[in-house]
Amino acid sequence: MNEVDWTNTRHRYEQELLDSVIPFWQDHCVDEKHGGYFTYLDRDGSVYDTDKYMWMQWRIVYMFAILFHTPYGKSHDEWLNIAQNGYNFLTKHGKDPAGNYYFALARDGTPIIAPYNIYSEAFAVMGAAALYRATKKNQYKEEALSAMDHYLTRLNNPKLQWNKILLGKPRMKSLGVYMILANMGAVLNECLNITDYQAEVQRAVDIVMHQFWDPNHGVILENVKAEGDYDLNSTEGRHFIPGHGLESLWFVLQYAERTGHQELIQDACSKIKKLFRKGWDPEHGGIFYLMDVLGKPHVELHWDMKLWWVHNEASIATLYGYRLTKDPELLTLFQQVDDWAWGHFRDPEFGEWFGYLNRTGESTHSLKGGRWKTFFHLPRYLLTGLDLMAAL
Amino acid sequence: MNEVDWTNTRHRYEQELLDSVIPFWQDHCVDEKHGGYFTYLDRDGSVYDTDKYMWMQWRIVYMFAILFHTPYGKSHDEWLNIAQNGYNFLTKHGKDPAGNYYFALARDGTPIIAPYNIYSEAFAVMGAAALYRATKKNQYKEEALSAMDHYLTRLNNPKLQWNKILLGKPRMKSLGVYMILANMGAVLNECLNITDYQAEVQRAVDIVMHQFWDPNHGVILENVKAEGDYDLNSTEGRHFIPGHGLESLWFVLQYAERTGHQELIQDACSKIKKLFRKGWDPEHGGIFYLMDVLGKPHVELHWDMKLWWVHNEASIATLYGYRLTKDPELLTLFQQVDDWAWGHFRDPEFGEWFGYLNRTGESTHSLKGGRWKTFFHLPRYLLTGLDLMAAL
Repeated sequence: MNEVDWTNTRHRYEQELLDSVIPFWQDHCVDEKHGGYFTYLDRDGSVYDTDKYMWMQWRIVYMFAILFHTPYGKSHDEWLNIAQNGYNFLTKHGKDPAGNYYFALARDGTPIIAPYNIYSEAFAVMGAAALYRATKKNQYKEEALSAMDHYLTRLNNPKLQWNKILLGKPRMKSLGVYMILANMGAVLNECLNITDYQAEVQRAVDIVMHQFWDPNHGVILENVKAEGDYDLNSTEGRHFIPGHGLESLWFVLQYAERTGHQELIQDACSKIKKLFRKGWDPEHGGIFYLMDVLGKPHVELHWDMKLWWVHNEASIATLYGYRLTKDPELLTLFQQVDDWAWGHFRDPEFGEWFGYLNRTGESTHSLKGGRWKTFFHLPRYLLTGLDLMAAL
Repeated sequence: MNEVDWTNTRHRYEQELLDSVIPFWQDHCVDEKHGGYFTYLDRDGSVYDTDKYMWMQWRIVYMFAILFHTPYGKSHDEWLNIAQNGYNFLTKHGKDPAGNYYFALARDGTPIIAPYNIYSEAFAVMGAAALYRATKKNQYKEEALSAMDHYLTRLNNPKLQWNKILLGKPRMKSLGVYMILANMGAVLNECLNITDYQAEVQRAVDIVMHQFWDPNHGVILENVKAEGDYDLNSTEGRHFIPGHGLESLWFVLQYAERTGHQELIQDACSKIKKLFRKGWDPEHGGIFYLMDVLGKPHVELHWDMKLWWVHNEASIATLYGYRLTKDPELLTLFQQVDDWAWGHFRDPEFGEWFGYLNRTGESTHSLKGGRWKTFFHLPRYLLTGLDLMAAL
């Protein structure tokens, strides 16, 4: 392990955030005509589709509102405007008569995909909460709390009538639901300064750490039985996503730091190290996207691809763990993923990062934004990294 | 172009079918305990999941029943038994109280995924029809016709309550629905010796040839507007799957041959040549899986992979076209895809073919069967190829 020059690293992150990532989105994502955002952006920022997927939309509200609240935002009122204009569009068009948050809208706000899951609600909570902190306007706080109530109400039947899984199939718990809950708890705590959801968040953290963690294989599974047991006889039960697990674990670190829970910090760091090594591709470097805990065939065709966000989350998890514990092994892992990611995902010519590489690390898509890539993981990582490094 | 030694080629196909593909499935797919089939088979035939996806199940019924009816089946009563036993399991467990065909069952037949699309019906039609031809038992004919009626009834609202697409989104027509209809027509004609659905099939062929065909780009699109216009402003409207298009076109050839429609044969062959060249990867060979007609980023991550079935369908389309027209260009294309496929997908050690290769042609999955790969495309291609070559 080399000594890290934190001043240089900070500078590198700051430049990437301010000169490459933010300008790319600020210049290309705003839909001046209808409101909301374009997220299908090709390499140079040109728009290749105009549908508005709500997770992607609300995440932009969140990210610009968060950035406005940082010291970097002092001279950037336009960041707040971008977030507020998006918010207005999304709250005007984005809910069905029963208050469920749609999955996707057409460019002009016409709903086109039904509210068949609850993550639109989750990102609405985060976007509205960040806007409240940036402005202290009550409407944003009310929206954040109402979206949160809605999320919690839907937890038991998140897919509503669009649930295709029949009663004959043993119920499974899905990691995403709990992971996001831990994240929302942190955002509400930070932005609204409330701890009302502490019990839910604590329960989510417990479930992630004890039910989804498979101690025999050193991974966080994606699906466990309702009672918390593993089901290693099915592809679904063996499925794990290293990037998801690492993201969950830094949410756990956030919670553990906030509540001063030292043992939980140690436990999460030990899990980060194990999971990182399980996910790392020994042949070509980088972290696999989708895996099977017993190494059986994965049902998804693109399991071995390298995705930008996975590497963003792995960087935060290792750096966060290192900041809290000074464990040199975590620093080595941070350097390892930092090197690989910066060597493969960047686009010095047009800014932002490529999202999708094949196993050997070549870009397979020219896009910078799409149905599942927006202004979120990359800027959040750079900003969180800067915060963490400030304390080193 | 080299002269083809058809005797050798026939021998190669016959060996592959009889010594590699059929034994693999015959030995590994039968669930002796519960009935139905295992389709999640790893490289050596070991089972890695036991869920029963209905498309995959019904296709096995179809294929063993079809094979039993060939001269190869004379000494293989067990092929008929395998098909009939699967049929019994699927008709006992595979329909909801309203007669809709479930999407998936658990190993013991408990329904686990709702009947949210109509392709289970489509493959039930084909499986039951093939069993009727093999046995002349009326129950199979009745099942085939009842499944066909059900398919046609559901055509206007195929996804039932599980449709997530809202009314605000302009309706699109999907190629698969029409492609399968042309295929079912051929199967019903062959197996039941009826032409009752000639009008529906003719309409499907017309729609495929005139509405889904984009003459400016030389491809068959996957989605066109309800009125038949293109929408090249959206990822959905620009999407094409060369393998799907080529499969549709040999169904068109089947129909054209059956009805003695020479112009349609010429038209379909000209389209096969254009589409084949559009789909071929000039750099690494093989045919891409999912493409955008304007070369814009594809929303799916695995667009550039090479799939076994795509190459099976491309082989049939070019060989069928050659047999009907003797166009040497079609023969060259057949040789091109035949060479590449046989050089990359085969597994001489354990039999059957690998299903999924990355762009450069390396296998990414050890599986021989799975949620979307079963005993269908490969044996159908080998058998159809043998039939076509018999006339050369």
